[in-house]
Amino acid sequence: MPENRPRARALVPANYWLLPPGAGNAITDVAGVRVGHSTLITGSGPLHPGLGPVRTGVTVILPHAGNLFRRKVRAAVHTINGFGKPCGFEQVRELGQLETPIALTNTLNVWRVADALVDHALGQNPGIGIHTSTVNPVVAECNDGYLNDIQGRHVRAEHVFQAIATAASGAVQEGAVGAGTGTSCYGWKGGIGTASRVTPTEAGSNTVGALVQTNFGRPEELCFGGIPIGRDLRPPAELPHEAGSVVVVVATDAPVDDRQLRRLCVRAGAGLARTGTTIGHGSGDFVIAFTTANARNHPNGDDHCLLTRAESRAADEAAVLGGLFPAVVEAVEEATLNALCAAQTTIGRDDHVRFALPLERLEAEKAEKNRSRRTESDF
Amino acid sequence: MPENRPRARALVPANYWLLPPGAGNAITDVAGVRVGHSTLITGSGPLHPGLGPVRTGVTVILPHAGNLFRRKVRAAVHTINGFGKPCGFEQVRELGQLETPIALTNTLNVWRVADALVDHALGQNPGIGIHTSTVNPVVAECNDGYLNDIQGRHVRAEHVFQAIATAASGAVQEGAVGAGTGTSCYGWKGGIGTASRVTPTEAGSNTVGALVQTNFGRPEELCFGGIPIGRDLRPPAELPHEAGSVVVVVATDAPVDDRQLRRLCVRAGAGLARTGTTIGHGSGDFVIAFTTANARNHPNGDDHCLLTRAESRAADEAAVLGGLFPAVVEAVEEATLNALCAAQTTIGRDDHVRFALPLERLEAEKAEKNRSRRTESDF
Amino acid sequence: MPENRPRARALVPANYWLLPPGAGNAITDVAGVRVGHSTLITGSGPLHPGLGPVRTGVTVILPHAGNLFRRKVRAAVHTINGFGKPCGFEQVRELGQLETPIALTNTLNVWRVADALVDHALGQNPGIGIHTSTVNPVVAECNDGYLNDIQGRHVRAEHVFQAIATAASGAVQEGAVGAGTGTSCYGWKGGIGTASRVTPTEAGSNTVGALVQTNFGRPEELCFGGIPIGRDLRPPAELPHEAGSVVVVVATDAPVDDRQLRRLCVRAGAGLARTGTTIGHGSGDFVIAFTTANARNHPNGDDHCLLTRAESRAADEAAVLGGLFPAVVEAVEEATLNALCAAQTTIGRDDHVRFALPLERLEAEKAEKNRSRRTESDF
Amino acid sequence: MPENRPRARALVPANYWLLPPGAGNAITDVAGVRVGHSTLITGSGPLHPGLGPVRTGVTVILPHAGNLFRRKVRAAVHTINGFGKPCGFEQVRELGQLETPIALTNTLNVWRVADALVDHALGQNPGIGIHTSTVNPVVAECNDGYLNDIQGRHVRAEHVFQAIATAASGAVQEGAVGAGTGTSCYGWKGGIGTASRVTPTEAGSNTVGALVQTNFGRPEELCFGGIPIGRDLRPPAELPHEAGSVVVVVATDAPVDDRQLRRLCVRAGAGLARTGTTIGHGSGDFVIAFTTANARNHPNGDDHCLLTRAESRAADEAAVLGGLFPAVVEAVEEATLNALCAAQTTIGRDDHVRFALPLERLEAEKAEKNRSRRTESDF
Repeated sequence: MPENRPRARALVPANYWLLPPGAGNAITDVAGVRVGHSTLITGSGPLHPGLGPVRTGVTVILPHAGNLFRRKVRAAVHTINGFGKPCGFEQVRELGQLETPIALTNTLNVWRVADALVDHALGQNPGIGIHTSTVNPVVAECNDGYLNDIQGRHVRAEHVFQAIATAASGAVQEGAVGAGTGTSCYGWKGGIGTASRVTPTEAGSNTVGALVQTNFGRPEELCFGGIPIGRDLRPPAELPHEAGSVVVVVATDAPVDDRQLRRLCVRAGAGLARTGTTIGHGSGDFVIAFTTANARNHPNGDDHCLLTRAESRAADEAAVLGGLFPAVVEAVEEATLNALCAAQTTIGRDDHVRFALPLERLEAEKAEKNRSRRTESDF
Repeated sequence: MPENRPRARALVPANYWLLPPGAGNAITDVAGVRVGHSTLITGSGPLHPGLGPVRTGVTVILPHAGNLFRRKVRAAVHTINGFGKPCGFEQVRELGQLETPIALTNTLNVWRVADALVDHALGQNPGIGIHTSTVNPVVAECNDGYLNDIQGRHVRAEHVFQAIATAASGAVQEGAVGAGTGTSCYGWKGGIGTASRVTPTEAGSNTVGALVQTNFGRPEELCFGGIPIGRDLRPPAELPHEAGSVVVVVATDAPVDDRQLRRLCVRAGAGLARTGTTIGHGSGDFVIAFTTANARNHPNGDDHCLLTRAESRAADEAAVLGGLFPAVVEAVEEATLNALCAAQTTIGRDDHVRFALPLERLEAEKAEKNRSRRTESDF
Repeated sequence: MPENRPRARALVPANYWLLPPGAGNAITDVAGVRVGHSTLITGSGPLHPGLGPVRTGVTVILPHAGNLFRRKVRAAVHTINGFGKPCGFEQVRELGQLETPIALTNTLNVWRVADALVDHALGQNPGIGIHTSTVNPVVAECNDGYLNDIQGRHVRAEHVFQAIATAASGAVQEGAVGAGTGTSCYGWKGGIGTASRVTPTEAGSNTVGALVQTNFGRPEELCFGGIPIGRDLRPPAELPHEAGSVVVVVATDAPVDDRQLRRLCVRAGAGLARTGTTIGHGSGDFVIAFTTANARNHPNGDDHCLLTRAESRAADEAAVLGGLFPAVVEAVEEATLNALCAAQTTIGRDDHVRFALPLERLEAEKAEKNRSRRTESDF
Repeated sequence: MPENRPRARALVPANYWLLPPGAGNAITDVAGVRVGHSTLITGSGPLHPGLGPVRTGVTVILPHAGNLFRRKVRAAVHTINGFGKPCGFEQVRELGQLETPIALTNTLNVWRVADALVDHALGQNPGIGIHTSTVNPVVAECNDGYLNDIQGRHVRAEHVFQAIATAASGAVQEGAVGAGTGTSCYGWKGGIGTASRVTPTEAGSNTVGALVQTNFGRPEELCFGGIPIGRDLRPPAELPHEAGSVVVVVATDAPVDDRQLRRLCVRAGAGLARTGTTIGHGSGDFVIAFTTANARNHPNGDDHCLLTRAESRAADEAAVLGGLFPAVVEAVEEATLNALCAAQTTIGRDDHVRFALPLERLEAEKAEKNRSRRTESDF
């Protein structure tokens, strides 16, 4: 029976974050965005490559409820450390748009999941490759092989379809679910986390949401809301020798173009760094960003504008971005901490264990911190 | 019964190329490099999506005969126009190395072929994802949907394994084979082509080989050895509205690093441009280069050098690259023309036809050209 | 007394180019674009470093007649081979805009010319660095040291101001003028060249102009309108050991954004490649593109749109780009040949000579070619 | 009379950093590296553009004591946010090497300083541009216009020469000196900071040094050793509306190549992020890295290796980089904090003031922190 664990916000010193979250403090606070998971947990004990135990899954993020191939959203990708196997990045860079759901899964499953996204797109758009162009699935991954029979590539097309079919707005399940089922973070159990921010009125009152698949970091590096908790707190578990990975998905409703979205991606790296990572050699750290504003129709002769008009809610670019950039940093940081907070202890292949981060330690730190915080506002 | 068609060299004006080819004028002139094809041709008549007709395949390029995961080769990738779906590029950029065969196939088959390369790597290296890191398959593609039931994704793992198993040094089959079975080039039947060059002694006597999967260009653009033959010569066939793609693989034995390999890739673009392309919006144009020199072991504690020593056969970097750059340009240009020369008329789905380039027209042009060529060597 | 030399169009085989030029076949066919030169020619005989002889200059391209800092144009840059010293590229990449004239000069003069552009901007905008942000001058260069006392950095601020002050629309002086005064191309005298194209009605009837500063290529590589004239024709002059450089400026009035402008830049490389270059190791080959559509105000609180609306004159993006890409390739190719045609024999430092390309040879080739051209339109 | 201010290490909670610094905790801990400053402080009161007050300077970093043009060092550059005007980046990217000192200065002075580096290189190498190639000066900048008459471009060639001539190993002057004389950081007085780390024996015992020119961040963002001090502590001064900039120089003696150096640069961004920055829109954030290992001779016919051998002191690449990456993050973070600690209150143009960060507040926070720190090492 899973314990009821708080989200990170309850554990971080007061006033640590500067911007307010959206209603759900989740990527789904960006109107229209939906998230779905398929979680695969079967078997236990010794690894039988190809058979199990299985601790993995797939998570999908849908920018809108419609047909993404017909109604593409502006997007950008960014590679922080390229030791990873994402699919679809070249075309997003060239065209600045996304035409499938974004799927996250385990490293060796990337290509099967991409193929399933193609199946899904073909089902919705039977003319693909026949009467019109082909389709570019976007998938990213983390290596969950410490807990999972990764060689088995257990995520099949039906799991992808199910994640898409059940994708929903509203609350997002976090922790050891979907693509986060078997991942680790700072030596603890990692998983899926999400958070959001709303930018100030003068910056346009835009919403920024982040969702992360966390599988990175060494225990001693962990900083939690500025508290370098990892200096003292170590998991009672063997550490895998390889560094892990992290995938960040950033969503916004701000009327930005793909160049500006790429600039948002760069700020996602700062959000991760606040949690302490030094970006390990073996860590595949990638960011994918999209905006729900300014979606574009698949070419059909009626796309009359090369540059789509957007009603901005703020005075100028500097003001809008001046709100969005801190929003990305904070949302990514909090999403990462939320993943750690939500993920519960998981036992996987060969009885490998990833322990849940002991939140009572953080609660004690926070209490201490708040007790000692000075309140004068200048010197 | 296929006619016996000459390679491009027989049709290009004398002295057009400045550097000599290797023994076979093929990518396999780089010692150790092997090429294998699986060609899939079944059915005819109306398209039944998922069933056929099938006009596709897979082509693999192996940098050496050993275990590529254990003995990685230095590599680079370069995107000329990113409207395409290659796999594995991020990791090659980050690490500068290649650890699987390179596979070429059709657009919608990329992920299944990548998954098959993973199967192949797992077979050779059972510790992948369990005791050591995962594996990064490199696959690129062209859209052969005008002739082929591309939705069917007919290239299966066994076809990939067969291409690898039958990969050989020596002569490379060109034209409508392997990944070139269903492709088009400048409105004619395209396919696989290859060529090579040897750099001058003072540049190190290095070998450069190129192999191309050609599926690009509008008929009117075609220049053949400097002759803008496309201005007058048009295929008697409907043209697809989308532009196509091209993948270039460059191999060398020169002791270059990954930064220098990326510079070779850039020159591949110049080789393509010589054949007339203006790099269409919808064309996914990618280059992958590797060197057989300075291969590196998979990390195992005995990889004692971060920078590996290489015996260069030339005096300095400028001299070596001064030989390699023109070699790449010429090899890529000739490989492209070889693809056009070798590819024979192909009838595919819905009785779509791609005609073989009519070489007699080129022979006539060449005769004219040689007759009129002036021989004085200065003015 | 300079001879009257034809432009390249008169020497290229009929029907070689597929798209029509603008009214002046010059970058100034893009409405509003102005070009100015300052040409510095003093002294002769032995080099006295710092004193002369001087064979250099500066060329400026102004996207519009107004204050560029206040009214910025969308822009992109692209590096084909980065062995060069351009200024201002990082900020153009980040912001996608240009806020000064583009200046071209010799390699060692880049920084003084950039500083002069700052002077010019300060003169027009006294608040720079005081009440508002700083300014990002964009300058590129070629090494004219074979003919010019390059160490002397003879281009001073007043020459930059003069080039700006005299910049004009209409005919552009080509050849050994401005930044092309001392440059070489394929072993012959190079210099400034320009050309333009108009895209078809269905592609939006947009204008594309190119201006090149040519200083690249080895004699044997030269192809002139598809004729590999360099195979037989060699300049009777010592060749410098280093490879040279080329800067391409592309202008358009099409309503494209900076991502699309970068894609235009890539096609400029194909235009250069058509003239035969293999992109030498020591060649600094750079492209700068801008559009006069969708200019943006300097931030002042009234820039209400992040994405500016543009009335496109064509149906969709693929159609517009399908016209622009070939237009760029052809304009850059013809501009390069125009530079060779216009440049006259120049004697420089240490009595180094760069001979004008002997156009009579090209005229003879063209006559031959046209005589032998077959006219049937299919086989 | 300047007060004696501690370096950051004295103010940061115990055990916050994981790796030991080098002997001087400075970039000069990398053997051979030298740093020099020229500091310009004249005038006070109202701004007279072009005349003063002057609060600026130049800082130079020399990788070795020899002729850098003749003995080039491997190098890489990385742009975090490209709203800035660095010089020389394109060539470093293409060739992976550095051939002049690195100079830092104010934004509008970049080009004059670059020109002075050319003067310096010509003085040492009279054949530049005559008998051999030209030279690529590398300069970066921050906007010190809030305190300084930036339009005056007061840093002249003699100041650059003086900084080079007085460059020294050993202790590096920090704070409001050289290129940091007029800069701001998190709303406080910023300036130059430096720090270093030594990697563990099993990672090769390599040294990493960082030097930063800090001019970025909003007050509320500042985190000091994990303490979000900026949430409560605000400078009693008007804030400029534009965001600032930061330049990071990373030096190492590890035998890495330019690709690996670029990976170090990426980690510098994580170091900055730890201090709280969200990478403002207007901030030009750039990183330059070099290694003193594997220097290369200017081409002269005896550079016999394309890839240079290096004796690594660690077992494999992953181990070496596994030490270097955290070392970069920590060194950059501490260097930034050192800049804040050393910089003293500065009054500049128009009596603008940047106050020194009040270190007593940090000392109190640290005392509190250490008092409350729990010591148990696991749960």
